[in-house]
Amino acid sequence: MPQDYKNIPTPERCYVDFCLIPVGTGSASVSREVAEVQKLLKASGLHHTMHSAGTTVEGSWDEVMKVIGQAHSLVHRLGAVRVQTSMRAGTRTDKVQTAEQKVQKVRELLAEDAHMQRRASLEDCE
Amino acid sequence: MPQDYKNIPTPERCYVDFCLIPVGTGSASVSREVAEVQKLLKASGLHHTMHSAGTTVEGSWDEVMKVIGQAHSLVHRLGAVRVQTSMRAGTRTDKVQTAEQKVQKVRELLAEDAHMQRRASLEDCE
Amino acid sequence: MPQDYKNIPTPERCYVDFCLIPVGTGSASVSREVAEVQKLLKASGLHHTMHSAGTTVEGSWDEVMKVIGQAHSLVHRLGAVRVQTSMRAGTRTDKVQTAEQKVQKVRELLAEDAHMQRRASLEDCE
Amino acid sequence: MPQDYKNIPTPERCYVDFCLIPVGTGSASVSREVAEVQKLLKASGLHHTMHSAGTTVEGSWDEVMKVIGQAHSLVHRLGAVRVQTSMRAGTRTDKVQTAEQKVQKVRELLAEDAHMQRRASLEDCE
Repeated sequence: MPQDYKNIPTPERCYVDFCLIPVGTGSASVSREVAEVQKLLKASGLHHTMHSAGTTVEGSWDEVMKVIGQAHSLVHRLGAVRVQTSMRAGTRTDKVQTAEQKVQKVRELLAEDAHMQRRASLEDCE
Repeated sequence: MPQDYKNIPTPERCYVDFCLIPVGTGSASVSREVAEVQKLLKASGLHHTMHSAGTTVEGSWDEVMKVIGQAHSLVHRLGAVRVQTSMRAGTRTDKVQTAEQKVQKVRELLAEDAHMQRRASLEDCE
Repeated sequence: MPQDYKNIPTPERCYVDFCLIPVGTGSASVSREVAEVQKLLKASGLHHTMHSAGTTVEGSWDEVMKVIGQAHSLVHRLGAVRVQTSMRAGTRTDKVQTAEQKVQKVRELLAEDAHMQRRASLEDCE
Repeated sequence: MPQDYKNIPTPERCYVDFCLIPVGTGSASVSREVAEVQKLLKASGLHHTMHSAGTTVEGSWDEVMKVIGQAHSLVHRLGAVRVQTSMRAGTRTDKVQTAEQKVQKVRELLAEDAHMQRRASLEDCE
């Protein structure tokens, strides 16, 4: 089936987890750059969560990618001549699921499993 | 300077953030596999933190990579014929810094910055 | 220094290496989806190179991210309800360097090094 | 089903594509470090292919992860106090497929497709 490539839209909703590294700054610390990027994310209005190995941003593909591109430009302004980012992007068409809901579902499975194990050990004692 | 490649050790300490995807399972949900991998991580005794886009593990390079390799084997056992993992690995020789300390440092910079901005606005009013 | 976040531009030039995985298709093979994405990339007119673990695309940040977002939508159309992509994005402000030039520079360093080693062994014989 | 986590083996075969970045060196160029890592890979005897955005290594999980860990240590020796690596690891249990075979399969699909399109245009002319 031939595709009209030019008119394929980008996803309306995605999550992108990214970790940005300034290269060639002469300093091993990246916390100042990370803090500046957090302020940029806040100003974007997009939902985002920082963790120790990156930050997850949620929104439309175009919005999310725009703000990560701006983060590169911002870190260049702060003095890094080279910026390298590792990203994981996810989209799905079957349902809308926030980042929090994904973590919650795994926690529920683990709690259920722990419950069944406790029950099994009690039954072993009877 | 020639290197004795065979005897270069692997790092004693590292953090690895990983996101494992079972491929070809016929299901878009990966929460069951993620829950099983969390149990494997718990059994390993290594410090680890799950977030919505992956899990960060801390320990020696060999320990951490062993448990992620075991996670692949475990997910194959659960039925996936193909497993794909995206990882970010970090090592440093200047200081020991836990995952929590990294996040804490950025939060302090942001708090300091917010404090200075409030002070600046107060001064503007005087 | 306060930043006018809204008006920070995205980079004019970048390279992004990406590896896209359809999830929940019931098949471990992804070659059909990869082939379709190659056709989309060709239609985009952007310079790109496929290797065994992904494809590198070069262009402006907005153009490159648009085509990768379109790739997600295209693979959804082909039947995958979930699509996961791992990306490495790089930008630099000190010079323009194509993907080929990066590889070439490493090859030159390796050739130089091999030349010096041969010379050193000849001198040992004298 | 309870798992004997300690005795789960790591995969016998995998491919890992990695991109290593020295941080805090004061230089935006990483070609010297990349060249040293290529020599380490050659000394390891593992099959590997360099491309513009990383290097793909094939072998057992333990062998491949050992050499990437050694690469971190080597780049630290060259002066970087911090090293950050982005990796994509893949394992499969349904068949053995080399990196070259993966690329070849996509090329065949594209060639087949181009052939069918040419045929379709000829038939349109009849």
